[in-house]
Amino acid sequence: MIDLPRTVDFDGEKVVLVDQRRLPEELSFLECADVDCVAQAIRTMVIRGAPAIGATAAFGLALYASRFKGSDTNEFIRGLQKAADKLRSTRPTAYNLFWAIDRVLKGINELNDVEAMRERVIAEARDIAEEDIKNNKLIGEHGYKLIKDGYRVMTICNAGSLATVWYGTATAPMYRAFEEGIEFEVIALETRPVLQGARITAFELKHVGIPVSLIVDGAAGHIMSEYGVDLVITGADRILSDGTTYNKIGTYSLSILAKEHEIPFYVAAPKSTFDLRSKPQEVKIEMRDPDEVAEIYGRRIAPEGVNILNPAFDRTPPDNISGIITEKGIIEKPFQENIRKVLLV
Amino acid sequence: MIDLPRTVDFDGEKVVLVDQRRLPEELSFLECADVDCVAQAIRTMVIRGAPAIGATAAFGLALYASRFKGSDTNEFIRGLQKAADKLRSTRPTAYNLFWAIDRVLKGINELNDVEAMRERVIAEARDIAEEDIKNNKLIGEHGYKLIKDGYRVMTICNAGSLATVWYGTATAPMYRAFEEGIEFEVIALETRPVLQGARITAFELKHVGIPVSLIVDGAAGHIMSEYGVDLVITGADRILSDGTTYNKIGTYSLSILAKEHEIPFYVAAPKSTFDLRSKPQEVKIEMRDPDEVAEIYGRRIAPEGVNILNPAFDRTPPDNISGIITEKGIIEKPFQENIRKVLLV
Repeated sequence: MIDLPRTVDFDGEKVVLVDQRRLPEELSFLECADVDCVAQAIRTMVIRGAPAIGATAAFGLALYASRFKGSDTNEFIRGLQKAADKLRSTRPTAYNLFWAIDRVLKGINELNDVEAMRERVIAEARDIAEEDIKNNKLIGEHGYKLIKDGYRVMTICNAGSLATVWYGTATAPMYRAFEEGIEFEVIALETRPVLQGARITAFELKHVGIPVSLIVDGAAGHIMSEYGVDLVITGADRILSDGTTYNKIGTYSLSILAKEHEIPFYVAAPKSTFDLRSKPQEVKIEMRDPDEVAEIYGRRIAPEGVNILNPAFDRTPPDNISGIITEKGIIEKPFQENIRKVLLV
Repeated sequence: MIDLPRTVDFDGEKVVLVDQRRLPEELSFLECADVDCVAQAIRTMVIRGAPAIGATAAFGLALYASRFKGSDTNEFIRGLQKAADKLRSTRPTAYNLFWAIDRVLKGINELNDVEAMRERVIAEARDIAEEDIKNNKLIGEHGYKLIKDGYRVMTICNAGSLATVWYGTATAPMYRAFEEGIEFEVIALETRPVLQGARITAFELKHVGIPVSLIVDGAAGHIMSEYGVDLVITGADRILSDGTTYNKIGTYSLSILAKEHEIPFYVAAPKSTFDLRSKPQEVKIEMRDPDEVAEIYGRRIAPEGVNILNPAFDRTPPDNISGIITEKGIIEKPFQENIRKVLLV
């Protein structure tokens, strides 16, 4: 079994979160007894990763519901809306955040008493979390056969258990392979500027017991060429209908290096990551604060006033992708045809 | 003119070094009045970059010679050897260090009096520094025509003025183009783990007045694809007879990304960087201290005990290189033939 706690959980009275600001030094938990604490935890990145953020927000609403005293349904709903607004304001770009909150709120108005509302909110939040785990386990089930004994698997950033409720997306095939007793090792790219690979992926794989080696991002090509890499698996922030994949900056470079070394390059993501309406030219790449690059733990590494380009994501074209591992199975080329076939059933 | 101080200089009484530990916060100087100070400066990386280290060691010997009192030639030579041993022990892998020290010591025994010895040591050290600058200026002269108005030029690590006595190798064509009034900009890769691109290259280009943008290493492919890059110029730590180039980790990946985007990829280096005897399989890639990756300014970014692979250099095959800019001209393919033709005249 995979010895990792749930990234986010709700015990009926408290929302319990792995405090990722303390990683990799320490695996510790933050317990929130009110919505303000939950909102603050999302804002300050106690928790990060789109699926984990969504579930945390849903549990924030469950926390409100469980704590509500009284029997006035209007009052319950006003407070719930206020809590939802508070949670929505935490991370303006996290799609899953809005999706999860909307899902919890949906149809609440139609219920007749506070007890039914309370139960519905809590049940819906639990469902969101359980579905996340279920989907990740299915991604693992479909994907693990790509990993064979003796393989060296490369990954970037953290699309791991700690980015989801549990088990991760890119890590799911690894965890399933590990449970099957397949012997393999992982090369984790540290993933500048925010170093999620070093701080989180290396932590969780090591904690589980999967052999992992950390490298700087610039070493990926050298490691492929000199050590040999058998498979690359990354997560995704958004996947378009033709397979174009938006993910952490560095993913596009990694896909070119994989192609050059003839290494299969897979993306792992649940259905909810697919955006079947947008076209590549319509998706904007978020440019983030230059200080993410210029400062490390408050110490300046770049000259004052120097221009810095800090794109948070990049775009990997479908040609560079061997397949997309989803809870419905592995989608192969032609993506345009097969993505619709798999997702729209 | 390029407004950068000499990285290393000798005023007859002191060796004056740009203190690179203080960059990018501050351009300050360390003045050494004895050999111990010079050795310590090399060891603690007040100065880095192979040509700069070589010249600093040579000036360390000049400092000894200028300070020597007495007329006993044996005593002079014993002290000179002792100073040489001290300087040699500072950075065991820096080829230029040994080359420069040997060159200063050569033939000293044959001189008849201390005054002649003193003059020879000082003159030879000055020659080493002047030749470095002269070669760099010639690299600039041959290379600058590659840079045209409106170009975006990408570079990795620091093969700049601050890695040499003055003017740099990879930066030489940029500085010459700047002097010619050509309008271009530079994209500097920060170059983990030691961040020479962020700390030093971005500093010196900005100081000179060349527009420079800093990016994380993982963003190179994205910047090429989305912004457009017209030329890549890197330095080299060693170049073999077939053009195989050893340089800072990340250079090989960058060469693949350049090839994918059909961007010319040039290496800039003086004759002294060429090793015409070794074969690729004979050159060992130095693996450096994992803590260079695991800790940034003393703060740990990776879990305790995690395996880290920290190759300091990588190997770029000749196929990925468009040409090699030397003081003798730009060497084009076939390298095997043309390197000998250019260097052995």
